[in-house]
Amino acid sequence: MGKTRLEAFSDGVIAILITIMVLELRVPHGDTLDALIPLWPIFLSYVLSFIYLGIYWNNHHHMLHTCTHVSGGVLWANLHLLFWLSLIPFATGFMGENHFASLPAALYGAVLLMAAIAYFVLQQMIIRVQGRDSPLRTAIGGDWKGKLSPVVYLVAIGVSFVLPALSLGLYALVALIWLIPDRRIERRMAT
Amino acid sequence: MGKTRLEAFSDGVIAILITIMVLELRVPHGDTLDALIPLWPIFLSYVLSFIYLGIYWNNHHHMLHTCTHVSGGVLWANLHLLFWLSLIPFATGFMGENHFASLPAALYGAVLLMAAIAYFVLQQMIIRVQGRDSPLRTAIGGDWKGKLSPVVYLVAIGVSFVLPALSLGLYALVALIWLIPDRRIERRMAT
Amino acid sequence: MGKTRLEAFSDGVIAILITIMVLELRVPHGDTLDALIPLWPIFLSYVLSFIYLGIYWNNHHHMLHTCTHVSGGVLWANLHLLFWLSLIPFATGFMGENHFASLPAALYGAVLLMAAIAYFVLQQMIIRVQGRDSPLRTAIGGDWKGKLSPVVYLVAIGVSFVLPALSLGLYALVALIWLIPDRRIERRMAT
Amino acid sequence: MGKTRLEAFSDGVIAILITIMVLELRVPHGDTLDALIPLWPIFLSYVLSFIYLGIYWNNHHHMLHTCTHVSGGVLWANLHLLFWLSLIPFATGFMGENHFASLPAALYGAVLLMAAIAYFVLQQMIIRVQGRDSPLRTAIGGDWKGKLSPVVYLVAIGVSFVLPALSLGLYALVALIWLIPDRRIERRMAT
Repeated sequence: MGKTRLEAFSDGVIAILITIMVLELRVPHGDTLDALIPLWPIFLSYVLSFIYLGIYWNNHHHMLHTCTHVSGGVLWANLHLLFWLSLIPFATGFMGENHFASLPAALYGAVLLMAAIAYFVLQQMIIRVQGRDSPLRTAIGGDWKGKLSPVVYLVAIGVSFVLPALSLGLYALVALIWLIPDRRIERRMAT
Repeated sequence: MGKTRLEAFSDGVIAILITIMVLELRVPHGDTLDALIPLWPIFLSYVLSFIYLGIYWNNHHHMLHTCTHVSGGVLWANLHLLFWLSLIPFATGFMGENHFASLPAALYGAVLLMAAIAYFVLQQMIIRVQGRDSPLRTAIGGDWKGKLSPVVYLVAIGVSFVLPALSLGLYALVALIWLIPDRRIERRMAT
Repeated sequence: MGKTRLEAFSDGVIAILITIMVLELRVPHGDTLDALIPLWPIFLSYVLSFIYLGIYWNNHHHMLHTCTHVSGGVLWANLHLLFWLSLIPFATGFMGENHFASLPAALYGAVLLMAAIAYFVLQQMIIRVQGRDSPLRTAIGGDWKGKLSPVVYLVAIGVSFVLPALSLGLYALVALIWLIPDRRIERRMAT
Repeated sequence: MGKTRLEAFSDGVIAILITIMVLELRVPHGDTLDALIPLWPIFLSYVLSFIYLGIYWNNHHHMLHTCTHVSGGVLWANLHLLFWLSLIPFATGFMGENHFASLPAALYGAVLLMAAIAYFVLQQMIIRVQGRDSPLRTAIGGDWKGKLSPVVYLVAIGVSFVLPALSLGLYALVALIWLIPDRRIERRMAT
């Protein structure tokens, strides 16, 4: 089975998610700075989630690049990932509206955690379809980023009930780790 | 006529439908569990409809896979299917907002029923275009899932006026039946 | 210049327009038939506009099928068409919310008229790019549908201030005329 | 790395942005001209932003046309551009709702300025990936439009605090400059 429609559908869903989040940035009543300033936590949450969805799209792009065909299991593992990503706009709005309070910050982390697990499952599915000598397995190597992220999310969820600002910092930290270009797959595909 | 744009357009519409449903999950006022818990019926409806739209996308993907070209009739049968799918977010919201009351549960079933009929019509159209030795006809075989689903929807619509929770269970059951991978088309295409 | 991205972008915009219209169908408060019934004018407007956008997508599909390459002018003529199509959800909501009152019915017709003109301009642009022996020119022939539609829209706009129900009937009539399959382009491409 | 998905994702995001702006055009209560007329500043802002997003899509299309492959840096520079474009619907709504008051007009200019800078960065990234003899570098030549636009935006932001109507005129002027077809890349690709 070809991967073209899987890519197209995932691109579509992620493109929509990344843009409907901006609808949470509601146009304020009034044309002064005083009307605009209270939007900062919603804007900050938007930036963070935009980066996260960008990272997922980027990594998804790289991961599928190593595939030539997909199985029914991969299609469903992919939909499972998209399901958790689809909750990011809600979690983002919940966190932004409540100025990074404890429960919203924890829920945001929980959605990120589930998305990370779903991504891992999808990765394993693809490796299984590719069989031995899987180019994806070779490309990801030890996958320390994929292993570290869920641990940090778990810590951040715990921390959010004590110091939600710190948990937000941890989410930003994980995003930063992923932003550092991961040349493994690019290098692998070049050889 | 090529099938590329038909696939792209259908992917686009289904991707948008699957994501705008999440807009029904409105960010609650308040940052406590008490603010979040009343959302559970909307969330549950969302999960069910996400799975249904995922199944439709998946089956659509497989069905079009057997095609090399499409006719004007297929384009319209496809738009007809997309029309009924486009009502799923409304029916989902109506059911979730009203905690699975009778009429919303029946309406949800009616939309699923019409979508199933539209899918069947599209399938027949494609088989007719493919002519004798249609790979799709061979692939679907007796099509017991396609025949059973509308019957269960009809039963569930009737049941919803007596015991709406049971009709919801029936909708979930049909989803489960479809989730079990259908290897017929994959097998057929492999040979 | 290739036409792939032009098709993809147009498919994306039309797919979004056809689905965001459903957001006007707001989930009613209450779970009874009494809550649902007042939605019928919005639903009816939705069906009509869904069919119109389906027709535009379908014809756009056929028209681009005759092209191998596009010019900068075609890109802009296409965006111009998409602009008027993008006003269909607004005009649909305005007409549905106001139970087919005079001004909303006239505005709906005006948007359809502008879209028809924009479609005609795009068609001419493509014919010019194709030069003499343009397959599109041969395919559309006398283009009686394209010439009749704006006239009917103009009549319907006038009629809407006297008998808005009749203007709605005229819009439905034009849709019906277009729904009758237009085999000209298909036949031309087959030969 | 191929550019297909980069194009598809960008097309998706821009298609969504260009259409969700229309959601700001809220269906008015009432069916008279008096109900419709107050929407004119929102409509005017919509037209301006539609043209801007159309220009960005058009130029993006041309720019990517000169590429055969992209790097990880290009992916991120592209996401950075999409981020600023994603703020256009918000800035448009803010300006339209407040009848082109000073702060909203300045914010609109700031978003256009950031998008222009992001576009410039993306252009430089692609030129760097293409190496010496970059077809994009040759194609854009002196890039006077790309250099003039940010200067005009800066002037317009300053002007908006004195005479916001003039700043709006300046935004329209820049759009007009870009609308004049830029045959450089087309010509370059033809040779």
